[in-house]
Amino acid sequence: MALWTKPPTKLLSGKIMAFTPTRYDTYDFANRRHIGPSPAEMEEMLKVVGVPSLEALIDETVPQAIRQSTPLSWAPMTEHALLDKLREVQKKNQVMTSLIGQGYYGTATPPVIQRNILENPAWYTAYTPYQPEIAQGRLEALLNYQTMVADLTGLPVANASLLDESTAAAEAMMMAHRASKSKAQAFFVDLNLHPQTVDVLETRAAPFGITIVKGQPDEMLPDQVFGAIFQYPGTYGHVRDFTDYIAMLHAAGGIAVMATDLLALCLLKEPGAMGADIAVGSAQRFGVPMGYGGPHAAFMACRDALKRTMPGRIVGVSIDARGNKAYRLALQTREQHIRREKATSNVCTAQALLAVMASFYAVFHGPMGLRAIAERVHFNAVRLHDALVAAGADVAPQAYFDTITVRVGVGQMGIMAAARQNGLNFRKVGEGRVGISVDELTDDDVIARVLAAFGISDPPPAGTHLGFPEEMLRETDYLTHPVFHMNRAESEMMRYMRRLSDRDLALDRAMIPLGSCTMKLNAAAEMAPLTWHRFNSLHPFVPADQAGGYAEMIEDLTAKLCEITGYDAFSMQPNSGAQGEYAGLMTIAAYHRSRGDTQRDVCLIPMSAHGTNPASAAMAGMKVVVVKSAPNGDVDIEDFAAKAAAAGDTLAACMITYPSTHGVFEETVKTICQITHEHGGQVYLDGANMNALVGLVRPGECGSDVSHLNLHKTFAIPHGGGGPGMGPIGVKAHLAPFLPGHSETDGKPGAVSAAPYGSASVLLISWAYCLMMGGAGLAQATRVAILNANYIAARLRASYPILFMGNRGRVAHECILDTRPFADVGVTVDDIAKRLIDNGFHAPTMSWPVAGTLMVEPTESETKAELDRFIAALEAIRAEVRDVAEGRISAEDSPLRHAPHTVEDLVAEWDRPYSREQGCFPPGAFRVDKYWPPVGRVDNAYGDRNLVCTCPPLEAWAAE
Amino acid sequence: MALWTKPPTKLLSGKIMAFTPTRYDTYDFANRRHIGPSPAEMEEMLKVVGVPSLEALIDETVPQAIRQSTPLSWAPMTEHALLDKLREVQKKNQVMTSLIGQGYYGTATPPVIQRNILENPAWYTAYTPYQPEIAQGRLEALLNYQTMVADLTGLPVANASLLDESTAAAEAMMMAHRASKSKAQAFFVDLNLHPQTVDVLETRAAPFGITIVKGQPDEMLPDQVFGAIFQYPGTYGHVRDFTDYIAMLHAAGGIAVMATDLLALCLLKEPGAMGADIAVGSAQRFGVPMGYGGPHAAFMACRDALKRTMPGRIVGVSIDARGNKAYRLALQTREQHIRREKATSNVCTAQALLAVMASFYAVFHGPMGLRAIAERVHFNAVRLHDALVAAGADVAPQAYFDTITVRVGVGQMGIMAAARQNGLNFRKVGEGRVGISVDELTDDDVIARVLAAFGISDPPPAGTHLGFPEEMLRETDYLTHPVFHMNRAESEMMRYMRRLSDRDLALDRAMIPLGSCTMKLNAAAEMAPLTWHRFNSLHPFVPADQAGGYAEMIEDLTAKLCEITGYDAFSMQPNSGAQGEYAGLMTIAAYHRSRGDTQRDVCLIPMSAHGTNPASAAMAGMKVVVVKSAPNGDVDIEDFAAKAAAAGDTLAACMITYPSTHGVFEETVKTICQITHEHGGQVYLDGANMNALVGLVRPGECGSDVSHLNLHKTFAIPHGGGGPGMGPIGVKAHLAPFLPGHSETDGKPGAVSAAPYGSASVLLISWAYCLMMGGAGLAQATRVAILNANYIAARLRASYPILFMGNRGRVAHECILDTRPFADVGVTVDDIAKRLIDNGFHAPTMSWPVAGTLMVEPTESETKAELDRFIAALEAIRAEVRDVAEGRISAEDSPLRHAPHTVEDLVAEWDRPYSREQGCFPPGAFRVDKYWPPVGRVDNAYGDRNLVCTCPPLEAWAAE
Repeated sequence: MALWTKPPTKLLSGKIMAFTPTRYDTYDFANRRHIGPSPAEMEEMLKVVGVPSLEALIDETVPQAIRQSTPLSWAPMTEHALLDKLREVQKKNQVMTSLIGQGYYGTATPPVIQRNILENPAWYTAYTPYQPEIAQGRLEALLNYQTMVADLTGLPVANASLLDESTAAAEAMMMAHRASKSKAQAFFVDLNLHPQTVDVLETRAAPFGITIVKGQPDEMLPDQVFGAIFQYPGTYGHVRDFTDYIAMLHAAGGIAVMATDLLALCLLKEPGAMGADIAVGSAQRFGVPMGYGGPHAAFMACRDALKRTMPGRIVGVSIDARGNKAYRLALQTREQHIRREKATSNVCTAQALLAVMASFYAVFHGPMGLRAIAERVHFNAVRLHDALVAAGADVAPQAYFDTITVRVGVGQMGIMAAARQNGLNFRKVGEGRVGISVDELTDDDVIARVLAAFGISDPPPAGTHLGFPEEMLRETDYLTHPVFHMNRAESEMMRYMRRLSDRDLALDRAMIPLGSCTMKLNAAAEMAPLTWHRFNSLHPFVPADQAGGYAEMIEDLTAKLCEITGYDAFSMQPNSGAQGEYAGLMTIAAYHRSRGDTQRDVCLIPMSAHGTNPASAAMAGMKVVVVKSAPNGDVDIEDFAAKAAAAGDTLAACMITYPSTHGVFEETVKTICQITHEHGGQVYLDGANMNALVGLVRPGECGSDVSHLNLHKTFAIPHGGGGPGMGPIGVKAHLAPFLPGHSETDGKPGAVSAAPYGSASVLLISWAYCLMMGGAGLAQATRVAILNANYIAARLRASYPILFMGNRGRVAHECILDTRPFADVGVTVDDIAKRLIDNGFHAPTMSWPVAGTLMVEPTESETKAELDRFIAALEAIRAEVRDVAEGRISAEDSPLRHAPHTVEDLVAEWDRPYSREQGCFPPGAFRVDKYWPPVGRVDNAYGDRNLVCTCPPLEAWAAE
Repeated sequence: MALWTKPPTKLLSGKIMAFTPTRYDTYDFANRRHIGPSPAEMEEMLKVVGVPSLEALIDETVPQAIRQSTPLSWAPMTEHALLDKLREVQKKNQVMTSLIGQGYYGTATPPVIQRNILENPAWYTAYTPYQPEIAQGRLEALLNYQTMVADLTGLPVANASLLDESTAAAEAMMMAHRASKSKAQAFFVDLNLHPQTVDVLETRAAPFGITIVKGQPDEMLPDQVFGAIFQYPGTYGHVRDFTDYIAMLHAAGGIAVMATDLLALCLLKEPGAMGADIAVGSAQRFGVPMGYGGPHAAFMACRDALKRTMPGRIVGVSIDARGNKAYRLALQTREQHIRREKATSNVCTAQALLAVMASFYAVFHGPMGLRAIAERVHFNAVRLHDALVAAGADVAPQAYFDTITVRVGVGQMGIMAAARQNGLNFRKVGEGRVGISVDELTDDDVIARVLAAFGISDPPPAGTHLGFPEEMLRETDYLTHPVFHMNRAESEMMRYMRRLSDRDLALDRAMIPLGSCTMKLNAAAEMAPLTWHRFNSLHPFVPADQAGGYAEMIEDLTAKLCEITGYDAFSMQPNSGAQGEYAGLMTIAAYHRSRGDTQRDVCLIPMSAHGTNPASAAMAGMKVVVVKSAPNGDVDIEDFAAKAAAAGDTLAACMITYPSTHGVFEETVKTICQITHEHGGQVYLDGANMNALVGLVRPGECGSDVSHLNLHKTFAIPHGGGGPGMGPIGVKAHLAPFLPGHSETDGKPGAVSAAPYGSASVLLISWAYCLMMGGAGLAQATRVAILNANYIAARLRASYPILFMGNRGRVAHECILDTRPFADVGVTVDDIAKRLIDNGFHAPTMSWPVAGTLMVEPTESETKAELDRFIAALEAIRAEVRDVAEGRISAEDSPLRHAPHTVEDLVAEWDRPYSREQGCFPPGAFRVDKYWPPVGRVDNAYGDRNLVCTCPPLEAWAAE
C-alpha cells in the first residue's frame, strides 16, 4: 500500500529554480508537521467536498456572525528555534534539592522507564482503553498498578488512578457521603492533612452542604460526622495508629478515609490493617518526576463493599471469544458521566501514563527493592532526627517515617536561607518551624548539607533504630504477584514494556478517529522538554525565584490562550477537562455570591451535552434544567428561552458546547448568550470542540463568560492511554477575581487541584505547539480539521447517513455516521467498531451523542492517504453489512460478528463461510505491517459478573 | 509463558526485616540491570554446569597463570548518580556556533527522527542485517540511503555507508588503485581536500607503496598517477567544474574520485555529470549531530563497472520464497574479511544507524526541502560574501557554495577572538586567513554576529544572486522515488519509522546470541547523554577550552581502559574494530621503523583468525604467515615457534585472539607472547573477545603489546543495525609515541580517522557503562558471561556436539554448536538459522570460525529464562532434524526448510505435512507477542544475479 503521492515527473529545473528560490519557509518546517494533507491533497479533497477553496468551505461552515474580529498575531517558529528557546527558558528554572515534602518527593525515574514509556509514542499517544481488544498492553500495566495499590494499602479494590492526591481525597469524601450510615452532614478533616488537600476538600464540600470539621484526630466526635479523613504519615511527619479512631467512627456508622503514602506503606502498618474503608494518595514518588506539580497518578483503594461507588476507571479481567484471559475496563455503569446530574463526582479521566510509570517502578524494584528504599529513606530520617536532637534542636514528631519538623522560632527565615545557600529547600511550617522530608534521592551529601544549614558539621552515620514504635511495622506481605518478581535485568524490563506496547494500537500506527476526543499529532519537538532535568525536577512549592522558566512559560501561554479565546484571564489549575468545567462553574457561583445573588442555582444544559456537564453542575451545587434539542440537533432555542425565563433570577448559568456535540456550528450561539445574560446568568462554553474554533472564532467574542480548554485535545498534549489531561479555564474580566485560589500562591480559597498550576509540566507541550504553529498555523489547523471532517462526510454520505449537518450541508470538525439502520439486520455498532480493528483502526466514538451511531473526528493531523484508508475500511464494512442485509451471510456467521480476527483464528481450524484472507485482510489493513489484536472480542458481561481487578494468580496464566 | 521466577511464599517478615535492613545496594541498582541471571538463577545454573560456585567455574575456565594481579579499583554508581555526574560534566562543554566547516556542519536533527530512531532501542539495538528476513526495516531505510547518495552524486551505485569521509576517501584511493588502467603508483591529491583527509590518505598510501602527489588541480600530471581525488566544493570553498581534469585523467587510464557534499549537490552540478568514477563524502549534515566528531555516516558511490570492487555493505533487492520483494545485503563475496590477506581494505562495518538517520532526513525534507535548505545556505553565504567585500575585505574564492575564506593577515588572532566573543568559531586557515562555513542553522542572528566580528554593523538582506557561475547549477532531477515524496506530516513520518522498526527483530524483543559479536544490553542510562545538547553539538575541531567535558570524559575513560587492559596508553581515534587492528599494526610498524628494523614485515596469524586480521595486516604493509591450528582448535604452538623462527628478524608481529575465536582460553598465550618477543616481534591481541577477560585478565599483563577494544561489543555501545562502532587501541608504553597523530591535535602524522577521537560522542556510552558497573561489576559481568555460555553448552551438549572445549571441559564466553552432521540428512545450517526466527530468535553466528557450525555468545545480559527459551528452541529444532533423519518427514517438506513462516503462509492454502501450529509456534515463540517476519526465506542468488541497489520503481510496489 503506497502512502506517498505520485511524484512530479520533472521535479526540479535548475536554471529556473535558482532564480526563483524555493518556497519552503518556517510554515513548511513547522506547521506541515501538524497538518496532514499536503497542499496538493487539499486541492483534491476540496473538489470532493465540492467547494472552490478552503476559505469557501469555512464560509459555508462557520457562521460569519461569530467569526473572530482579528487574526491571531504571533509568527510561527521552527522546531529547531523552539528547542533553542526552550533551552534558554529552562535555564531560568533552578533545580535545588527540595525536601519540602507535602505530597511531592524526589524520586529516581529509572531510565529504562523514561525512555521506553514516557518518551515512547506507543505509550503516550494511546487513547483511553475503551476498546479493550487493542489496549491489552496498557490494561495489563494498569492492572499491575491496581494490584500495587491494593497490596500496599491493604485494601482489596483499587482504581486505575485519579488526578491528584487532593482531588482523590475529595472523591473519597463524596464516596463516604454516599456510603455512610450516619445522617450527619459534617466530615472530619485531620489537621495533619496536607494544606492543599484541606483546601480542595473545603472547595468541594460547600456546594453539597457538607461541613468540614478540622481538628487533631483525638478531637473527632464520631457521631457528629459521616466520615473522616486522616493523613498517614501526617503532613508534619506523624506516624500513628488510627485503628481506635476508625473503630469509633465505624461504631457511629461513619466511613474512614486515610490519605497515605505508598513508600511509607512498604515499612509501616497498612490502612487496611487499621480498618480503613478508603485509602487515597499520590503515586508520584514511585518514579514520576515532580514536574512543578504534575502530572502524577493519584490512587484510591477501598473495601470490597464500596467498589461500586468508587469513582474513576477500574481495570478488570474477563475472557475473549475463545475463552482466553482478556483485560477490560470494568463496571463502567458506575462512571459519573453516565450518572449525569445525579453524579457527585465528574471524574472521567485518570493519569494513565503516570500510573503506568508508577506500576513499572514497582515492577522494576519489586517488593524487596521498595522495602529497601523505604528503609533507606527512613534510616536517613532517623539519622537527621538524632543528629538534630543531639545538637539540642526541638524536633517533632516522636514517631515519623520520612518527615520531621524542627522548631526554630525566630530563626526560621535564617534557617530557610541557610538551606537555600546549601542548595536545599526546606518547608516553611507556620511561623517558627521548618519541615524536612527525606526521599529516595537523599544521600550522604544531602544529609551533610541539611545539617550544615543547622550549623552541625559532623553528620552521624546512618541510623539503625526505628523512628516509630515497633508495633507500627507492617506485618503483611505485598506485591507477591509474579509480575513483581520477574527478573529485573534491564533487558527483561525493556522487553516486557515492548511486548505490552506492541499489543496496543496507538497514534503511532494509525489514526484514531474519535469524535470529541481530538486525537491529533503529539509532535516529538513538543514532547522533548518534558524529560529535561530543569523542567521535570521542580517541586511545585519552590520559591518563585527558582521557577522563572515556568513563570515565563505560563505567562506567555496564558497570553496566547487569551488571544485565542477572547477571554481576559486564565487559571491553569484544573488538571482535566471535567475539573475545568467544575472550576468554571464554581467561579460563576462565586461571582453570583459576591453580588448577593445567592439564589442563582439553575444551570441550563442541552439534552445533547456530554454527561460531565450536568455532573459538574451538580458538583457546583447547581440544579440542572435540561433544554430540548430541535429535530436538526440544535438547541431548541424556544425551549431554551422559556426555561431561562422560568428560572428568572435563579438562573446561574447555561452550559453549551460549541460547535455542538452533534458536530454543527449552530447559528444561534449568540442568541443563547444574550438570553442567558438577559436573565442575569453566565455562559459556560465547553471547550471540548475548540479544535473547530481556534483562530476562527473566539468564544469570548460570542458572548461566553467562561470556557475550559482541553489542552490534551486541542493543544497537542497526548492522551497517554487515559491521562494526563489539562483543563485550564478562561474567563472574562468580571469573573477573574473568582478564579480558583491556592494556598501556596495567592492564599485565596477555592482550590480545585493539589498544585497551583495543575499538571504544570505538560503545559510545555501546549506552549510548544502554539509557538511552532504560530497564529496563522493554528487557524489553518482549524480549517483543515473542518476540511478533513467534511471530506469524510462527503465520501461516506452514500454509505452512511450523516446525522446533523448545518444549514449549508456542512459538518464542523467531526461527523456522525448513522449505523442504526443496520440493527434491523442484526449488525450492531459494536460489530462495526470491532471489525474496524481488522481494518487496522481504532473505532470512532460509539453511541454518543446518539445511541447506535459513530462519531468521527479526523483532526487536521491526518493525511488524505490515511483518511482514504479509513474510508475504504468503512466502505468495505458497509458492503459486509449489505451481504448480511441481502441474505448472503448471517450476521452471526459474518466477519463483522467474529471481529476482531486474531492469529489464533488463523492457526485454528477455519470453519467460517468466508476466507481467512477476507477475515484478516479487509481493505485498510496493512499487508506486511498488519496490526494483530492480542485477543478476540472481549466478553464484557462476564467480566462484570466475575469481577477481578488485581493481577490474577499465577495459575490463571498457566494456559499461556 | 511466564518469564518471572516463582515468588517466595512468605516474602517479608516485618519484624525481622526492620532490624536487618534489606541488602539492596548500589550494586543491585546498577549492575543487576546489566547482569541477566538473578543470584537465585545463578545457583540453579551452576548446578547444571556442575560446579559449586561461580568462582570455581572461573577457576576451571580461565587459566590461573594469566589471571590479573589486582582487581579493578573503582566503585559502582547508580543510574541516578551517573546522570547527575553527566549533567555536571556536560556543563564543561561550551556550545558555540561553529562555522568551521571542514566536513562538519550545524544541522537541525528533526525531533521525530531523534525520538523515533536515535532514542529508540528498536533501531539502535539491532544487529547488522545479515539475516535479511528479520531486518527488512533497516534494509529499506539503508536502501533509501543508497538511493539518496546515488541520486545526489549522479552515480548509479552507492553503498550503505562507510566510517567517515576521510577513510572513505582512502577506500576510494584503494579502489582506484585496483581499477585503474594506469601502471603509475602515484595518486594525485587536490590541495583543496580537507586536511584530515589528506592525512588519512598519506597514512593509508605508504604501506602499499603508493606515492601521494599533492597540488592544485591544474598541477596534476595525468599520466603519472593511477588516479586523483578532488574536493568539491573545496575545503576553502572553491566551486569548480572538474569535467576537463577528469577527462584528462580518463585519457591516461586513471580513475577520478571526488570528495563532495550532499547539500551542495542539491544545487550544484553533480560529480556523475562531470564524469567522476567515484564520489565520497559525509552525510553528517543531513540531520546527524556533530557529536565532537561522530559517529556520522560517510558515503561512497561509483560507476556501475566498479561496483564489485566497492568496499562496504550494499543493500540489494531480491525476492522471498513466495516471490515477494525482499531486501538483503548484496555481493557479500566482495567483503574484505573474505578476501583476507589479499584484501586492500578491512572495512567490515558501517555507520548504519547514522545512515538511517540521514536517509530519514532526506525523506523528511524531500528534494524540494533539501533544495530549499541548500539555497538558503547558499544565499546566506552570498550575503556574507557581499557584505565583507563591500566592507573592503579580501574574500575568496570567486565561486563558492557555503564556505568563504577571508584574508585578515596579522589580524587573524583578533578576528578569531572577536568571533568567539560573539559566540562563534571561525576556522583558522594558515597564518593570515579565516574560513567561514554557512550551514542550515545560520540565521539572521548568526549573520549579524559574523559581520560584527569584522566590525560591520548593518547586515545586508539575503543575497539573491548566485555565488558561482550559472553553468555550475545542477540540471538533473534527484530523489524522484516515491519514498522521498511521501506526505511529510509528522504522523506519517512517525508511522513509517514505526512500521519499519516493527519489521525487525532487535535486542528489545529477544536475545541475539551472536558469537564474537557480544550483543549485550545497551542500557537506557548509558544512551541518555548522547542526545544532550552540550554533548552532541560540538564541532570536532573546536578550541580545547570549549570541550572540557569531553576532555574529562576521555581522560577518565582512558584511565579505566588502561586499568582494565594493563596497557599504558590509548588512542581513541579508530572508529571501528577493524580500524583499531589497522591502527595497532601501523603503530607496531612505526615502532620497528623507529628502531631501524625496516625489514620487519612478517605477521603471524592463526588459521582460525577473523578475516579482518589478515586484511588489516595487509593494509599495514605486512606479509601474512598463517599458523596452523592444533586438533583441539588451539594455535599449534610448534608451528608457531617454527614460523616465528623462520621469520627471524623479519618478524614484525603476531596477531592472536584471546580467548581464541574457538571460544577457548588457551593455556599457551603467554608462550606465544614470549616466542614473539624473543624474535623481536610485537604481539597484537585482538580485543574481539574482551568480554571474557575484563576484570579477570589483563592482556598487557600476559605479554601483549597492543589491542583494540570493540567498545560496541564489550563496552555497551549498541550495534545500531551495523554501526556505529569504536575500536580504540591500547598499547604498552614503548609503543605510545607511535600511536596515530592528528593534524587538529598533536599535529603528528599517522591519522587513521577524520576526527581525533573518532566517534567521540559514543564514548559516553562506554564511560557510563564503566562508571555504573564499577570495577567489581565489570569482573562479575565477565564471570556471568562465562557462566551463561557454559550453561548453554551444558544444556545443549547432548543434542549438539560442542566443538573446542578447554582442557577442563569448559568453554569461555561463547560456544560452537556442531551442526555439520545434519548436512548428511539434508538439513543446512541455514535451515536452522531460519527456523530460529520462527522460534523468536536471531540466529547465532553461522559457519564461523568453522563452516557448518553455529557460534553462540549469550553475554552476561541474558536471564536464565531467556537462555532457557533459546535452549528450548534449539532442542525443538534438534527434534525436527531427528524427524528428518529418521524418515518421518523429508528435509524439503519439513518446517526447517520452509522457515521462516510468515502470516502469508497462514493465510494461504496450507499443504504442508505439518500443522500451522507446529510451523508457526514452535517452542520459544511467544504466543501473544509472536514476532512475524515480514518476508519468507530470501533468495540470495536471485538478488546477486539481478542486482538492484537503489529503491525499486513504483511499479515494483504495485503488488503490495
